[in-house]
Amino acid sequence: MNERDMDAPGTRANAPGGHAVAMDGFPPAPASRVGPDNWYRNPWLRWGFLNRSKLVKGTPVWRGAGPVSVLPRAEGGLGALEVEGADGAATTLDALAAACGLDAMLVLHRGRIVHERWLHMRPEQHHTTASVSKSVLALVAGILAARGELDLARTAGDYVPEMASSAMGDATLQQLLDMQAAIVRPPMATRPGAIGGQDGGVYEILGLMPREPGSPSDFYEWLLAKPRHGTPGSRFYYDNGQVEALAWAIRCATGTPIADLVSELLWAPIGAERDAWYACDETGGEMASGGLSTTLGDLARLGELMRAGGAAGSRQVVPEAFVADTVRGGDAEMFARSDFGARMPGASYRNFWWISHDAFGGFLAVGRYGQRIYVAPGAELTLVHFGSMEGPPPHPLDPLLGRAYRRIAQALS
Amino acid sequence: MNERDMDAPGTRANAPGGHAVAMDGFPPAPASRVGPDNWYRNPWLRWGFLNRSKLVKGTPVWRGAGPVSVLPRAEGGLGALEVEGADGAATTLDALAAACGLDAMLVLHRGRIVHERWLHMRPEQHHTTASVSKSVLALVAGILAARGELDLARTAGDYVPEMASSAMGDATLQQLLDMQAAIVRPPMATRPGAIGGQDGGVYEILGLMPREPGSPSDFYEWLLAKPRHGTPGSRFYYDNGQVEALAWAIRCATGTPIADLVSELLWAPIGAERDAWYACDETGGEMASGGLSTTLGDLARLGELMRAGGAAGSRQVVPEAFVADTVRGGDAEMFARSDFGARMPGASYRNFWWISHDAFGGFLAVGRYGQRIYVAPGAELTLVHFGSMEGPPPHPLDPLLGRAYRRIAQALS
Repeated sequence: MNERDMDAPGTRANAPGGHAVAMDGFPPAPASRVGPDNWYRNPWLRWGFLNRSKLVKGTPVWRGAGPVSVLPRAEGGLGALEVEGADGAATTLDALAAACGLDAMLVLHRGRIVHERWLHMRPEQHHTTASVSKSVLALVAGILAARGELDLARTAGDYVPEMASSAMGDATLQQLLDMQAAIVRPPMATRPGAIGGQDGGVYEILGLMPREPGSPSDFYEWLLAKPRHGTPGSRFYYDNGQVEALAWAIRCATGTPIADLVSELLWAPIGAERDAWYACDETGGEMASGGLSTTLGDLARLGELMRAGGAAGSRQVVPEAFVADTVRGGDAEMFARSDFGARMPGASYRNFWWISHDAFGGFLAVGRYGQRIYVAPGAELTLVHFGSMEGPPPHPLDPLLGRAYRRIAQALS
Repeated sequence: MNERDMDAPGTRANAPGGHAVAMDGFPPAPASRVGPDNWYRNPWLRWGFLNRSKLVKGTPVWRGAGPVSVLPRAEGGLGALEVEGADGAATTLDALAAACGLDAMLVLHRGRIVHERWLHMRPEQHHTTASVSKSVLALVAGILAARGELDLARTAGDYVPEMASSAMGDATLQQLLDMQAAIVRPPMATRPGAIGGQDGGVYEILGLMPREPGSPSDFYEWLLAKPRHGTPGSRFYYDNGQVEALAWAIRCATGTPIADLVSELLWAPIGAERDAWYACDETGGEMASGGLSTTLGDLARLGELMRAGGAAGSRQVVPEAFVADTVRGGDAEMFARSDFGARMPGASYRNFWWISHDAFGGFLAVGRYGQRIYVAPGAELTLVHFGSMEGPPPHPLDPLLGRAYRRIAQALS
């Protein structure tokens, strides 16, 4: 036995019966393999988040040739901070993170790491960001718009002729960024493993489930099949299709894959510590709505970028006006009327970011199963975490995490 | 039109009729898509080499957190150097590189770049290394052996019980490294796209071709199906199975995926400029015999490592004795008796490297379709190139490349 005989982080924890380790051995024991029937439960869910590229085809996002932007460390540690636990009684931040099934957490105050927990992964590992990917695409759109390469007032159909007659063809790019295209999800097929509400068809496209005859083979086909509902700009309707439509428009406007744009416009300028990675469909099209994997440190760099109004050091990476427009928030009344109104009272949505409108000016990028960027400029706070929280959203522990963020902001203020 | 409307390098060149650009547009035009019927011809072959991760699942190889080892540039340029062309008449090195379908070439003299040509790719792009991957695995084995984690005198069956009763079970790891296990390739199925002689089944495992019923689903099953032939140590038999068997033994000896070993033992210590990438089967098992993609610069760093007897700067990365044992060469008589004897007169094979036994002490790592490391210590030369040379090996232009290497070595001596 040597140190390499230890379990890889993130594989042996939280196994709810059955085989306790995902992909265990060479070759992996049959019961430990990640497949259509188990990928959405731990330990397989976590393994899949940490090893996305072994399950799904994709493409790296080059970090560029420049130096890594260092995230300095400060004295601190919030692990013992008292927060509200699942039973309503007080617990510690560390205990809450473990109870939620988080994989790692970083808290930065004034740009310095004051708390870090690596529960089920190492700092250099990739983890899926899920819908945090959406918030990243928005920044690309904001940069391109300021450069005159994209007009957010023009429609999806203006940029992509194939979309013109589709349900989202008459939505402006700004309406897509605000989840206001006039679309609705088609009825979900009920299949083993077909959990997850809105994402019908996506798992088949990514090859995580066998494709049923006639189901879409790529994200282009998939989004063109969205049925029409109402008129654009009349309701907040959170759906991956809005994001994939914007991604398609951006590809056509620039002639460039999304991965190359994220590399050039974000990953290189922020001094990312590692190449990121996008899941792709069989055409090589990146899943812009949920396919990005990164390190947790690079997620923190994105959060810090937003906290600094789009600047990384002395360089303005995302236009300050676009960040300000995002942070100002979206149509609060429209949001209140949506499915999310009761779940997130007082919040709004703008440019693929969630705006808390809390006492700290907080805003978030949110990904299913526990992926998060929370930025609270009023507390000079950036908090990021990855998770493998089982079950369909909304997760019952999500509100606890939200209250913990504000507790941390208070403690640091 | 802006600069992004330019063709991506490596897609529009050398198209032999048909659609001139691989994966052209968003979504790609049907005739431009890379699939089972066209992947082995350009422009699709080249696109697939430059975008392997979009076609095949895989895993990144972390470069580590350390600084990039700089490859300094010197005055020079060998593009106009006179070499022998395809018609026997004199031509220039640049013209030969283009005629061969090379994608990029770097020549280093005394550790400095004296010549570089980027024909169909950018310096930061990944390219498949094909069987150069074998030579990389050998270095991992050499390092582990010196650390006492691997005993090259023990057999594959000693390390992997499942292999004990297989055709390669009684081969020592050293015999595997020298391609001397007692195996033979099963008869090849004749299918469209099933070119490539020795690699029957591999394309199905990687998902590049539809899998036929009953064919192996991963590299473990695949290598266990190799028929027995003769006794170990009696003949040189170049085959991917020998490499996959060694990879399996290494995984079992260390409890660690090959990608993590390459990261820790090679990519980090040599100061690689970018994460590398391995193609994987559906178990997440790396294709150690041909699945590694890297930048050309990192291939040059590997060549320089070998030229320096296994040292990168002041750090001994690969044991000097292992490099010396490799460069000394293998059983020349056994090699002469093999299929390769006539093709490479005077050469031998040792530790997954080809030894030229030329006037410059030259040795090579060789990958199908034009991937190469040529190191000539006598001329203080390291030469690397990537290619998309169509057709099954041996390629008719290969001997010209070999003569060009020695011409370059002469010119620099």
